[in-house]
Amino acid sequence: MTFKDKLLRAAANNRSWLCIGLDPDIGKLPEVVSRDLKGIEVFLKSIIDNTADLVCAYKPNIAFFEIFGGPGIELLKGIIGYISDEIPVILDAKRGDIGNTSKMYAQAAFEYLGADAITANPYLGYDALAPFFEYKDNGVFILCLTSNPSSADLQKLAIKRPDGSKILLYESVAAMARQWNTKGNIGLVAGATSPSELSNVRKIAGEDIPLLVPGIGAQGGELVSALMAGRNSQGKLAIVNVSRSVIYASSEGGYAEKARTSAESLVEQIRALSA
Amino acid sequence: MTFKDKLLRAAANNRSWLCIGLDPDIGKLPEVVSRDLKGIEVFLKSIIDNTADLVCAYKPNIAFFEIFGGPGIELLKGIIGYISDEIPVILDAKRGDIGNTSKMYAQAAFEYLGADAITANPYLGYDALAPFFEYKDNGVFILCLTSNPSSADLQKLAIKRPDGSKILLYESVAAMARQWNTKGNIGLVAGATSPSELSNVRKIAGEDIPLLVPGIGAQGGELVSALMAGRNSQGKLAIVNVSRSVIYASSEGGYAEKARTSAESLVEQIRALSA
Repeated sequence: MTFKDKLLRAAANNRSWLCIGLDPDIGKLPEVVSRDLKGIEVFLKSIIDNTADLVCAYKPNIAFFEIFGGPGIELLKGIIGYISDEIPVILDAKRGDIGNTSKMYAQAAFEYLGADAITANPYLGYDALAPFFEYKDNGVFILCLTSNPSSADLQKLAIKRPDGSKILLYESVAAMARQWNTKGNIGLVAGATSPSELSNVRKIAGEDIPLLVPGIGAQGGELVSALMAGRNSQGKLAIVNVSRSVIYASSEGGYAEKARTSAESLVEQIRALSA
Repeated sequence: MTFKDKLLRAAANNRSWLCIGLDPDIGKLPEVVSRDLKGIEVFLKSIIDNTADLVCAYKPNIAFFEIFGGPGIELLKGIIGYISDEIPVILDAKRGDIGNTSKMYAQAAFEYLGADAITANPYLGYDALAPFFEYKDNGVFILCLTSNPSSADLQKLAIKRPDGSKILLYESVAAMARQWNTKGNIGLVAGATSPSELSNVRKIAGEDIPLLVPGIGAQGGELVSALMAGRNSQGKLAIVNVSRSVIYASSEGGYAEKARTSAESLVEQIRALSA
């Protein structure tokens, strides 16, 4: 089964386009959890147990595991393995290197760690991404427009095209992604900072490309407008990612139930929109 | 001691601007070496033992270790620790994420693994790189112009500036890097594919920024023209990286001596240029 089919199935089964970001931060763990890898494992598994019927995907960010070195990577592998096969896992790794090396990154993410999809960086161009595309049952979310304050430094530079017209760099990346998507396994990362920019990405990318939309807090307005702007004409393929406001909803005991409550309130808004 | 001072000292002591890329590829290991992590450890340590007086830096690419998961990361840590404190280690990882996450990547590279410098991707802009810059004794080589066939897809797009003039994206990155270099710890990755582009990067980046120059084979012409184009007016700060043609110089026994011979012939050309 392809990543996209798995995503569509999970979204249909759970009636949700919510993705929960699994970013374990020692400094933010609930007080009842031990501040070590064992504590992180207990914490993440509780979050997963309490939210698996509410999400269309999980998105662990590998940086939060890399700070623990080899044991952190093994924990990440264990967490990915713990998530039900019904729910796709998007590994947020933002990788990209020359072809020979990207092949190693793809193997590490898809074969060793068992992720269903990965985020990747377009700066090196097509051949740096091609080794990821080769895994036709895995997804590749190419960074397009990110939600950080400095995203405009490069992403909103104005490109002058041969015909004299102008296009922003992130628009150019969205157009390339559409062109590169011959295997149907490409997605784009497009932040929720501005609904108009997000709908712009959707328009350029076309109907078939999943958008991974980070940068959403617990606020309902943001989520609804992002979903409206990012989804396709069938109301699908906009994956709204929420990390901290769900998994750190409470710093005390009962944190997993609080995370569920926080996720539920988001999912209710998503479902109301589809009704 | 800062990364740059360590680099300058190693280059002076060894009279060399050669960096050897430590990219262990199971498929390319000499036949006498076992095809597992133990074999890779023996192989890399032999290469280091036989070349440490010939280089200004080593550059392990983390992807080649990530395919082995946690144990691969621990091996990388061991290899970095094995390299003499006299020789700086540039971790080729091409990282970059939003600030909060880049901070984790910086901690993993500089504190856990013990690298002296890292390669990083500029697509997310300044705040994605700032957490690396904060480590003032560590270096950050920002991808500028890479040596892969598709590098032009983004890097050579023409940017239209507010005053109407035109600049290529990689030139814009070089200009930003110069502006961002307030702590003096920024470098740039600029491939050796074209000497004129490389000297263009040097011109834009100024005299103070080290250039890491990949894409050089065993051919002397390439090395000499890259060095001439990339170095500053003092003949310094162009780090020419060679990986496969040195470390896989022989597929048989005596591979480390063959690697040394291959490195020596490159270093002789570098020394001849400085004489």
